[in-house]
Amino acid sequence: MKEVRIGMLGFGRIGRLHATNLTRSVPGAKLVAVADPYLNDDAVAFANSLGVDRCFKDEAEIFNASDIDAVFICSPTGTHPDFICRAAAAGKHIFCEKPIGLTLEEINTALEAVKKAGVKLQLGFVRRFDHNHKKVHDVVASGKLGEAHVIKVCSRDPEEPPEAYVAVSGGIFMDMMIHDFDMARYQAGSEIVEVMAYGTNKINPFFAKYDDVDTAIVMLKFENGAIGVIDNSRAARYGYDQRVEVHCDKGCVQDGNDLIDMSMISTADGVTCEKPTWFFLERYNNAFIAESIDFVRAIIDGTDVPVDGHDGKMAVLIAMAAKKSLDENRPVKVSEVDV
Amino acid sequence: MKEVRIGMLGFGRIGRLHATNLTRSVPGAKLVAVADPYLNDDAVAFANSLGVDRCFKDEAEIFNASDIDAVFICSPTGTHPDFICRAAAAGKHIFCEKPIGLTLEEINTALEAVKKAGVKLQLGFVRRFDHNHKKVHDVVASGKLGEAHVIKVCSRDPEEPPEAYVAVSGGIFMDMMIHDFDMARYQAGSEIVEVMAYGTNKINPFFAKYDDVDTAIVMLKFENGAIGVIDNSRAARYGYDQRVEVHCDKGCVQDGNDLIDMSMISTADGVTCEKPTWFFLERYNNAFIAESIDFVRAIIDGTDVPVDGHDGKMAVLIAMAAKKSLDENRPVKVSEVDV
Amino acid sequence: MKEVRIGMLGFGRIGRLHATNLTRSVPGAKLVAVADPYLNDDAVAFANSLGVDRCFKDEAEIFNASDIDAVFICSPTGTHPDFICRAAAAGKHIFCEKPIGLTLEEINTALEAVKKAGVKLQLGFVRRFDHNHKKVHDVVASGKLGEAHVIKVCSRDPEEPPEAYVAVSGGIFMDMMIHDFDMARYQAGSEIVEVMAYGTNKINPFFAKYDDVDTAIVMLKFENGAIGVIDNSRAARYGYDQRVEVHCDKGCVQDGNDLIDMSMISTADGVTCEKPTWFFLERYNNAFIAESIDFVRAIIDGTDVPVDGHDGKMAVLIAMAAKKSLDENRPVKVSEVDV
Amino acid sequence: MKEVRIGMLGFGRIGRLHATNLTRSVPGAKLVAVADPYLNDDAVAFANSLGVDRCFKDEAEIFNASDIDAVFICSPTGTHPDFICRAAAAGKHIFCEKPIGLTLEEINTALEAVKKAGVKLQLGFVRRFDHNHKKVHDVVASGKLGEAHVIKVCSRDPEEPPEAYVAVSGGIFMDMMIHDFDMARYQAGSEIVEVMAYGTNKINPFFAKYDDVDTAIVMLKFENGAIGVIDNSRAARYGYDQRVEVHCDKGCVQDGNDLIDMSMISTADGVTCEKPTWFFLERYNNAFIAESIDFVRAIIDGTDVPVDGHDGKMAVLIAMAAKKSLDENRPVKVSEVDV
Repeated sequence: MKEVRIGMLGFGRIGRLHATNLTRSVPGAKLVAVADPYLNDDAVAFANSLGVDRCFKDEAEIFNASDIDAVFICSPTGTHPDFICRAAAAGKHIFCEKPIGLTLEEINTALEAVKKAGVKLQLGFVRRFDHNHKKVHDVVASGKLGEAHVIKVCSRDPEEPPEAYVAVSGGIFMDMMIHDFDMARYQAGSEIVEVMAYGTNKINPFFAKYDDVDTAIVMLKFENGAIGVIDNSRAARYGYDQRVEVHCDKGCVQDGNDLIDMSMISTADGVTCEKPTWFFLERYNNAFIAESIDFVRAIIDGTDVPVDGHDGKMAVLIAMAAKKSLDENRPVKVSEVDV
Repeated sequence: MKEVRIGMLGFGRIGRLHATNLTRSVPGAKLVAVADPYLNDDAVAFANSLGVDRCFKDEAEIFNASDIDAVFICSPTGTHPDFICRAAAAGKHIFCEKPIGLTLEEINTALEAVKKAGVKLQLGFVRRFDHNHKKVHDVVASGKLGEAHVIKVCSRDPEEPPEAYVAVSGGIFMDMMIHDFDMARYQAGSEIVEVMAYGTNKINPFFAKYDDVDTAIVMLKFENGAIGVIDNSRAARYGYDQRVEVHCDKGCVQDGNDLIDMSMISTADGVTCEKPTWFFLERYNNAFIAESIDFVRAIIDGTDVPVDGHDGKMAVLIAMAAKKSLDENRPVKVSEVDV
Repeated sequence: MKEVRIGMLGFGRIGRLHATNLTRSVPGAKLVAVADPYLNDDAVAFANSLGVDRCFKDEAEIFNASDIDAVFICSPTGTHPDFICRAAAAGKHIFCEKPIGLTLEEINTALEAVKKAGVKLQLGFVRRFDHNHKKVHDVVASGKLGEAHVIKVCSRDPEEPPEAYVAVSGGIFMDMMIHDFDMARYQAGSEIVEVMAYGTNKINPFFAKYDDVDTAIVMLKFENGAIGVIDNSRAARYGYDQRVEVHCDKGCVQDGNDLIDMSMISTADGVTCEKPTWFFLERYNNAFIAESIDFVRAIIDGTDVPVDGHDGKMAVLIAMAAKKSLDENRPVKVSEVDV
Repeated sequence: MKEVRIGMLGFGRIGRLHATNLTRSVPGAKLVAVADPYLNDDAVAFANSLGVDRCFKDEAEIFNASDIDAVFICSPTGTHPDFICRAAAAGKHIFCEKPIGLTLEEINTALEAVKKAGVKLQLGFVRRFDHNHKKVHDVVASGKLGEAHVIKVCSRDPEEPPEAYVAVSGGIFMDMMIHDFDMARYQAGSEIVEVMAYGTNKINPFFAKYDDVDTAIVMLKFENGAIGVIDNSRAARYGYDQRVEVHCDKGCVQDGNDLIDMSMISTADGVTCEKPTWFFLERYNNAFIAESIDFVRAIIDGTDVPVDGHDGKMAVLIAMAAKKSLDENRPVKVSEVDV
């Protein structure tokens, strides 16, 4: 295969981001159709501007199109497992945004369908493709610092989402920290076997209405004996604070935030530098491109995708365990929720 | 009082450090005598070089000396409560290295004695006096960032102590993280009410022989709803890694390590900067002086000491709770161990 | 005008860079033709991949095309003045790479042609559009630091060009430091009236063969009384070192280099960070896009271009003065060479 | 010799600083007497507090004291050559603050006296002993970066001195940049053979009254073909800006300022770090101690001092050349003023 013909499922913010990247920056990718039940004139115009004229409200048009090799699932989480099953049944490769699903049963069904169909499934854990986090990973994985002891992930959003989003988000662990669970697994090179969660509400009272917290710390135990910790906040205010530290036998590798610029202003009042880039679109812009490049290349070359269905399932299980830990104020083994 | 005449109890490494500081750098302090049961010629020579010629093996000489206003307790932990009681009984003000004691009963007895005698008792939580951590505290305490949400303390020693030390250290929580429990209380301005500890052995097998871990992460719940986390390692290898972050309503204040120097070497192989200063003597050198200055000033001015017996007791209780949490793999309320 | 139809003159490295940007990232731009006397199959294929099928060896095809609104002059320096004159005569707006020309006479002729034709002429001083340098400029221009006293520009290439390039480059001042002369003018907001140059050969012996230096420092006097300094090296080895400092009444604003990533590795051997991005394509990638966006917007909106023919001429004059200063080892007024 | 008995000549700010260091922090040093024509009760009390009870108004008391091995010359510049001659005649080793003198004739006479007497003479170029600048030097001197191409010294005071000081200071080159000329020589490991100076008045009008500038840039040519540049400001406002960069065959070594603390405050308004330490007493505190330790050790061990009379003379000659260059707006060879 020299070109991967792609259909986009869901054409909201993240769908359009992927569509733009596929069109401009991903060698071998050709976006040929988009489907979204809420498709409007604006969406059609956007698709047209990318040279895509097949725009549908019914996603079946994508699954049924014989000239489409792969789909990008950028629709609401509730649709993910069903779309995965239908894409697999149609023999199409699948790129799916996180989380892969909200219940273990539907996730297992989807993974079974993928396995049976022999198609590729890549999960959108975009942070693995960030230049900073990837560098940390590569140093750890090289083994030159020896074995990992402690993995720390700091992940703080600049501002809370609107209440309507919180209501359907699935909670901080499934919606937000799921990225960090994957990051911790990625950095450790070992499975998380137990978690213990602390949470609090400090940002906005509406989180509590949905049995959610807006600030959380979760400790991790890894299979290989390493331990870790993740802290999340829904509103850091100064920008998107995304940092990883891995402490090993021979030392530490950590990363800092990308900054808006590298300026420094020195006056009698102090020295001022720029803030981190604002949010995920700014910070992970190139990472979104990189994950799509890898997905398309894996299809063309017939190689493995870099983040697969197992990764997608594990992150969900860990999020479930973290929520249970917070609710019951006790450490919870991941195996407890994998039933 | 214009001058505080001081007797030193214990004249090992930390005793000599304080003795040097009191002689050279603390206005109003006059070190007049030292006592150590292992006093040898070398110790006497060191004392003499500081202008101190009253050197004893029997600490009673210090307690009985009517011209001594205050004592520095720099002897092994096991002696702390008894020495506090005896100093208090003799009407002498007390500076005591951490921890204040190893059992709750003896701590309570010591604090009672101090209270009854009306003397001052300052605990040696030296890190509160570090320019970096103090700046973080002052920013948080100023309220300009609003309420604290999350307190993070990273505290990593450069290399593990010898096995003989580990055998009698009291374990990582009582020996090492006790400083960080105090730091967390200091930064949060709120009591710690519950802890949850994870630990592992990655540095040296001998820790396990003493039912100890060499790597630990402890989550904290504060009375005011904030949460926190501390991570400790007995061997970071690259130097003494001592960092604090406090995340608040309006942003974050954090500190970095003091570095050996501010050089930067750029070549085709990369950009190299200096490491953190090696260990506590290098990093907290000025802080040791500052805490003694404050202690002596509090005596002269009749004001409160900056770190008191309550602070000493709380840190011990939290360390006990952390050990219990690690042993039982469950969150432990500090009130559980305060019986 | 809603769309600017562009013809590219010169289709080497820089031409293809602009062509890619115009096609993918510049709203309102439409690249419709390219011309290069050395046009080969590879160049045609590249143009085709951007959707451009009008590929010529004869630049006259561009000047004569009635549907072309503007040209990008990306051909060798020797052609710049002639191409400017011909584009102006054809009523086309002009984006011209630096330098505008190599002799004062031809520059004056070209500027006269532009003025007479009433077309826009923008010079490719791309660094003005870099996020870091622009931030420095904006802080200075805001006046919040008061008046500028000293402007310092550090500009060091990672590696020397091939000898063949050096032979025809015009020398370090005209080829390389010309960017920094423009940067100094941009930051100071004042004309340079005198320069004094020191140079040396430390990098590669072949520079001396062409009466050129590979390392140079030039001091600047500005009309407003500020002074400045630029240092250039043809081979910094660790990457592209591009930094600006402006010292003002109330303090300093400076910038640092963009780094390959924000990682930090700490071991007993030291702390290692990443190097600056490699060269101008990496560092000024977004700046190349930004300058084209501004050029196209100026045409569509009928506003002034941000860097004009006067800026192009001044940078050349300053480079001439610097060369004369180096040759004669004396300060040279810019007015001396503007005859 | 096991102990060096020292007499202090001049007991103002810098004299008291050295006196305190000699008493507290310099092994083998014993300050035994001070002399200052303006000696008052306060000065005597200060000396007494250091255990020094021999306090004189007449410096002859120092030169005549047979038990004094060495002198520290901390008196006004005008007295330096005479005091050097008298100390040398008395067979005393000499530590002399910069500059060694103001005229070439008196400097030569003083150096001749030192040579004849066979005593040691160390100049107070304290910055060579700063941990940051010394690290830069050591990296360059190690040769691991290859040959030096460019030496850059940025040296900016936080605030201008009072007008009365400016009136007698000898001007910016002799009073302030003299330190940087020495730093440039120290870093380059090669003599400066020519300078070119630009200066301006931007800070305070009173400098112009004394034929002085408050802002200056000086380019340097070294004997070994390297070139360099120094920039000075009398008022950086944000603190003492003291940075050095040396660019070599294989890369660059540079240093940053010591900061008041390592804190970082991140809010929606920006990220704020601390300023450089305020001025030379804060920045070079440990360097003052280090230079005295080296001086005393050289006497005790009979080894060479690290900064000698030649260094003192060269810095003065370069300052003279820089002033001549500024006055005549032309490059001046150092040999021109060494007559």
